[in-house]
Amino acid sequence: MAGDAVRMSRAAVIPAPNAPVEVREVPLPELEDGAALLRMEFSEVCGTDLHLQQGLLAETPYPLIPGHANVGVIEEVRGAVADVAGRAIECGQRVTFLDVHGTCGACWFCLVAKASTRCPSRKVYGITYGAEEGLLGGWSEYVHLRPGVRIIPLPEGLRAETVIGGGCGLPTAFHAVDRSDIHMAETVLVQGTGPVGLSCIAFARLRGAAAVIAIGAPQRRLDAARRMGADLVLDLDATTAAQRRDAVLAATEGRGADTAIEASGSPAAVPEGLDLVRDGGTYTVVGQYTDHGAVPINPHLQINKKHVDIRGVWGIDYSHLHRAIVMQQRYNDRVGWERLITHRFDLDHANEALEAVRSGEAIKAVICPWGVS
Amino acid sequence: MAGDAVRMSRAAVIPAPNAPVEVREVPLPELEDGAALLRMEFSEVCGTDLHLQQGLLAETPYPLIPGHANVGVIEEVRGAVADVAGRAIECGQRVTFLDVHGTCGACWFCLVAKASTRCPSRKVYGITYGAEEGLLGGWSEYVHLRPGVRIIPLPEGLRAETVIGGGCGLPTAFHAVDRSDIHMAETVLVQGTGPVGLSCIAFARLRGAAAVIAIGAPQRRLDAARRMGADLVLDLDATTAAQRRDAVLAATEGRGADTAIEASGSPAAVPEGLDLVRDGGTYTVVGQYTDHGAVPINPHLQINKKHVDIRGVWGIDYSHLHRAIVMQQRYNDRVGWERLITHRFDLDHANEALEAVRSGEAIKAVICPWGVS
Amino acid sequence: MAGDAVRMSRAAVIPAPNAPVEVREVPLPELEDGAALLRMEFSEVCGTDLHLQQGLLAETPYPLIPGHANVGVIEEVRGAVADVAGRAIECGQRVTFLDVHGTCGACWFCLVAKASTRCPSRKVYGITYGAEEGLLGGWSEYVHLRPGVRIIPLPEGLRAETVIGGGCGLPTAFHAVDRSDIHMAETVLVQGTGPVGLSCIAFARLRGAAAVIAIGAPQRRLDAARRMGADLVLDLDATTAAQRRDAVLAATEGRGADTAIEASGSPAAVPEGLDLVRDGGTYTVVGQYTDHGAVPINPHLQINKKHVDIRGVWGIDYSHLHRAIVMQQRYNDRVGWERLITHRFDLDHANEALEAVRSGEAIKAVICPWGVS
Amino acid sequence: MAGDAVRMSRAAVIPAPNAPVEVREVPLPELEDGAALLRMEFSEVCGTDLHLQQGLLAETPYPLIPGHANVGVIEEVRGAVADVAGRAIECGQRVTFLDVHGTCGACWFCLVAKASTRCPSRKVYGITYGAEEGLLGGWSEYVHLRPGVRIIPLPEGLRAETVIGGGCGLPTAFHAVDRSDIHMAETVLVQGTGPVGLSCIAFARLRGAAAVIAIGAPQRRLDAARRMGADLVLDLDATTAAQRRDAVLAATEGRGADTAIEASGSPAAVPEGLDLVRDGGTYTVVGQYTDHGAVPINPHLQINKKHVDIRGVWGIDYSHLHRAIVMQQRYNDRVGWERLITHRFDLDHANEALEAVRSGEAIKAVICPWGVS
Repeated sequence: MAGDAVRMSRAAVIPAPNAPVEVREVPLPELEDGAALLRMEFSEVCGTDLHLQQGLLAETPYPLIPGHANVGVIEEVRGAVADVAGRAIECGQRVTFLDVHGTCGACWFCLVAKASTRCPSRKVYGITYGAEEGLLGGWSEYVHLRPGVRIIPLPEGLRAETVIGGGCGLPTAFHAVDRSDIHMAETVLVQGTGPVGLSCIAFARLRGAAAVIAIGAPQRRLDAARRMGADLVLDLDATTAAQRRDAVLAATEGRGADTAIEASGSPAAVPEGLDLVRDGGTYTVVGQYTDHGAVPINPHLQINKKHVDIRGVWGIDYSHLHRAIVMQQRYNDRVGWERLITHRFDLDHANEALEAVRSGEAIKAVICPWGVS
Repeated sequence: MAGDAVRMSRAAVIPAPNAPVEVREVPLPELEDGAALLRMEFSEVCGTDLHLQQGLLAETPYPLIPGHANVGVIEEVRGAVADVAGRAIECGQRVTFLDVHGTCGACWFCLVAKASTRCPSRKVYGITYGAEEGLLGGWSEYVHLRPGVRIIPLPEGLRAETVIGGGCGLPTAFHAVDRSDIHMAETVLVQGTGPVGLSCIAFARLRGAAAVIAIGAPQRRLDAARRMGADLVLDLDATTAAQRRDAVLAATEGRGADTAIEASGSPAAVPEGLDLVRDGGTYTVVGQYTDHGAVPINPHLQINKKHVDIRGVWGIDYSHLHRAIVMQQRYNDRVGWERLITHRFDLDHANEALEAVRSGEAIKAVICPWGVS
Repeated sequence: MAGDAVRMSRAAVIPAPNAPVEVREVPLPELEDGAALLRMEFSEVCGTDLHLQQGLLAETPYPLIPGHANVGVIEEVRGAVADVAGRAIECGQRVTFLDVHGTCGACWFCLVAKASTRCPSRKVYGITYGAEEGLLGGWSEYVHLRPGVRIIPLPEGLRAETVIGGGCGLPTAFHAVDRSDIHMAETVLVQGTGPVGLSCIAFARLRGAAAVIAIGAPQRRLDAARRMGADLVLDLDATTAAQRRDAVLAATEGRGADTAIEASGSPAAVPEGLDLVRDGGTYTVVGQYTDHGAVPINPHLQINKKHVDIRGVWGIDYSHLHRAIVMQQRYNDRVGWERLITHRFDLDHANEALEAVRSGEAIKAVICPWGVS
Repeated sequence: MAGDAVRMSRAAVIPAPNAPVEVREVPLPELEDGAALLRMEFSEVCGTDLHLQQGLLAETPYPLIPGHANVGVIEEVRGAVADVAGRAIECGQRVTFLDVHGTCGACWFCLVAKASTRCPSRKVYGITYGAEEGLLGGWSEYVHLRPGVRIIPLPEGLRAETVIGGGCGLPTAFHAVDRSDIHMAETVLVQGTGPVGLSCIAFARLRGAAAVIAIGAPQRRLDAARRMGADLVLDLDATTAAQRRDAVLAATEGRGADTAIEASGSPAAVPEGLDLVRDGGTYTVVGQYTDHGAVPINPHLQINKKHVDIRGVWGIDYSHLHRAIVMQQRYNDRVGWERLITHRFDLDHANEALEAVRSGEAIKAVICPWGVS
């Protein structure tokens, strides 16, 4: 970044709902005290990016630079910027950061309920920050890390591809599995074999489940589910609900799964999941990030008589990302998160990236803002 | 009980689904070792008794002597019978007992899941024991307390009317409130002002809720709700769902209830309750004891984004009854459970008792097998 | 505050360890944006103030203005200052505030462990802020509420005397009882009848304990313990440890207390408390705020074989004060926290205030910086 | 077992405290309805057996047949005997069983506290049953499985040596790790590298700890600790307490272990462990099975200010053994519990077996009642 001539960043921008992504030049920020500039390496393409492009999320501030899960190298630091252990963030460090920014620490949800994911002040890089506020999304050569952004230097031995292979599904799945409070020796069912579901499988296994059953499609993802640790995979496209129920009961001495985790995005998965979890079990709902309407649920049979514990999981906080990265460093040799990356695109092919996600062809597509090497 | 002439007991019997209750003579049991004979004072008439008479519960063993919440005086004891503290049960003691009997202590649910309410061996006095098995329901002059029945002598100062005024709703509500894990200073919403809901109000208050809101009807029950500790009552018959939502939000700084407990029996209460609980709150479903079909629930808005914890509560175990009785002894001066009793009937008027419950005229109707004094 | 002449505040200052308190004139602050000026009404005199005067706390920044539990009226506000619900703080409001200030929200303890009481950045009004940093203690006519101080307007009907009668022991006891996770119908033992112990008794009762036993002295405090809700009080000065053990076992069918809370400050209370809690019970240690050395504990008999859960409780966060105030508003009619105030002193008699606490003559002494009315 | 001639069993018996073990002939039982006869394959030699021989446990019913962790083959069944899933136990099946027998299911601890390990009726094979009551310990050719003994057929693929390699430390460690409630990505410290400590290491790893540190001795056990999953081992014999503290802090960014588990049996480990766990962490005490006296603990520094959670763990119930066996079946390929067996003895060399345990020469010694193959 020497001289005035390079102080622009190319960025892929969604101009408006349903408009194709286009590449624009956006000025680099004047760093405030406590800010940093990130030279991007990888940004994720996730289902939420598709929903943003399709105009499905309320209050999206178009034009928007997508990209909320990111890895890059620190290019510039202004003033004191540190990680949670108080170590200075330095130029040249490879880092990721929490997309959630600006949690206030002063409201009822932050201070009394201790539910910071419900803080009304929270902003999200690549989702609720618009392009007019600056380089605040990862589909860009550079990202502006504002003061207070929580930055995590990648620990020794952890590759950028491993982190971005997990993507935003990594801390989301971590949160879901953590909140599910799995006990050792349980049988865990995961509904959905997209990025969140696949990381749920991995974490359920690492957390001590004795058996993991996955329901999903297509075959490429079922193969990935097995690699991530599923003992039994059920093909959503090739089975009926009754067949899936028979298979789950057969695998659990007739009781159903001790814990089930919904990570499918399909409302219909919820009543099916309630039928597949055992009496007194736990059912965690993490995949319903977009409103696809209501489904019929029987309160007597599926909640009350089942004595079930249903837990909604919305968003993540810093702890989930921090601890998920620690787990990757220690256990990626068993999981291989980087193998989830099936497609890479540069900024000029961001529309193709969205299409690869939409079609289900990709397990995980990533944007390489400086070009696919 | 001297001589052969008294060895029959009058009992009110449901002969078959939808048939009127009739009084029959049933022989008194030969007590086995570890058994006792209870001379009844009060038996409850609860909504489940109505459902039994209407044939709404699967696998009911007609003919049946109803009555699963009971108080009486020990008439005879055979061999060693003791309470949980190991004190001998003696003739002349006034007692209640847990209707659930025969939990096996040997199956996967008892031993591994530690969810004894799901034990397949459990039997329930007045519900799953039929009249052909003996005097195993409380609408009778005498009840046969088989070996292993958990008997609780009423502690000093606790009246029979107070215990039966709580009825089976007392331990059920205790379980629901206990499982709701209310924190001090929370606002708790209770949906339903029948016997379970009214005891939920009382226990939520005793457990440290700062405010209790009740939704119910008719006026007589709303008045009772206030006496049991509700700060705000909303008349289900005189308000729309939107009005109730406005009232709950107004009472909670716009957030909704921290904890809501469904004790209404109406499936429609469940989606409404999910709209009334705050983000990150807890919703306990205890009132759906009969299958009244499915209702539409939106997994995105009502579970996932709400980050809610939904807990089904089925049945009770001994601890709930034991601890509920301890609470009555200590705190009934604040609650006045005996005031819930609005109607008393003898065995010959059991059909009228059911009608008083069906019509909603009664808050709590009781059977006095030896006559209404 | 009209004109230059009144821009000094009288404040009671501890100049150095073991030196008598003296009254000094301290300049009023220039308020920063987000700050407020509090005209004091009541400040507490607590055991920690005595320890500060005696030089028992490490790293105390003498000279020091004590006073960490405070109530006053907002005199001036600069810029946007709001409570946790986002409502503006306004001149003329009667408020209290959290003494803990400056929790960073950026360190490992704040973000990963979610244990903000262990945040290394936290400062405490009246304890870790010295007089040279300004009017940051309550034994003063005015207090400087820096930006970020968490202010709570007293809710309608809650008197200043009630809040200061609870003092810093109020949120501390709230935290201890909250962390003890008392179940309804338990017997709770509280060791210590100073301000923390007395509020523990009140909250244990409000939280659903069926019986509360208190151990303490002298008689004046035992009388207060009964008024706060203790069913049984044991005089520490008039009983042996064996007699106390006999009394606790007699009150618990021979088992010991389900939950015990140490709020005595005496190390010897800890092994005694472990002997008084039942097998499988919970023992919360909240009273050991100063290092008085080690005591012998038998790991086999008092921890392992007892299957006990021992919980240390250090400090408070905002939620504890917020929720304690809500509880006071709702339930003070049962408790009467203001009755704990036995002594009032003006700034010129601060040394007498400390002596009243040291001697145990006072239950609760308060400083009235503008004079005792 | 055809004919009268074989109806005796050779068994190793401790005749009295401090007397050498001797082999006796004990008659085989007449099986009651619901009982079974087990032909033994392996019985464990554990530290408790040594304490029994040394007379260190109160109320031991000498003469005694030791052996509370056992694997064998069902030789005979009388009447209906089933596992927790209701499947009949059949002759020829290889099984283990829970040594705890006779939990009453009727007392306050079983029913109200739900703490069956505190049930006063519980008996333990090889510990609280004396030889005069029959073949109720595993150092014998045959064991009498009384009605109600909880029997677990070894699942397919799980070898007898793997189960006995875990021994009684397997479910004990499972209970300790389960009760420690480890969160993913934590650093767990295990004090002690005997059988309980080694299984704690394995389960902490399987439960999602990111790092496991072990303190123990001698070298053979430290090598085993590494094989079981420890990342860092500290030699108790070659380090000072200060050196161990430096090492633990260095491995945890200066904070100490998130969770520490005491499995050493030495009282001095408890204050050291409290110094090694971080503020707000959890400390589980499972190794103090015998009374070795008191140690000094500082309530201010080591409990209150540390905000620590200390959990005593006494005994096991069926769920711990059941779930531990499920974990072995699934994960033994990572752990290799059978490799803990270092010594095998027949009944005639039981004294040598005890000596191998006493000297610390053995990690795990087993008795092969029919001879070492």
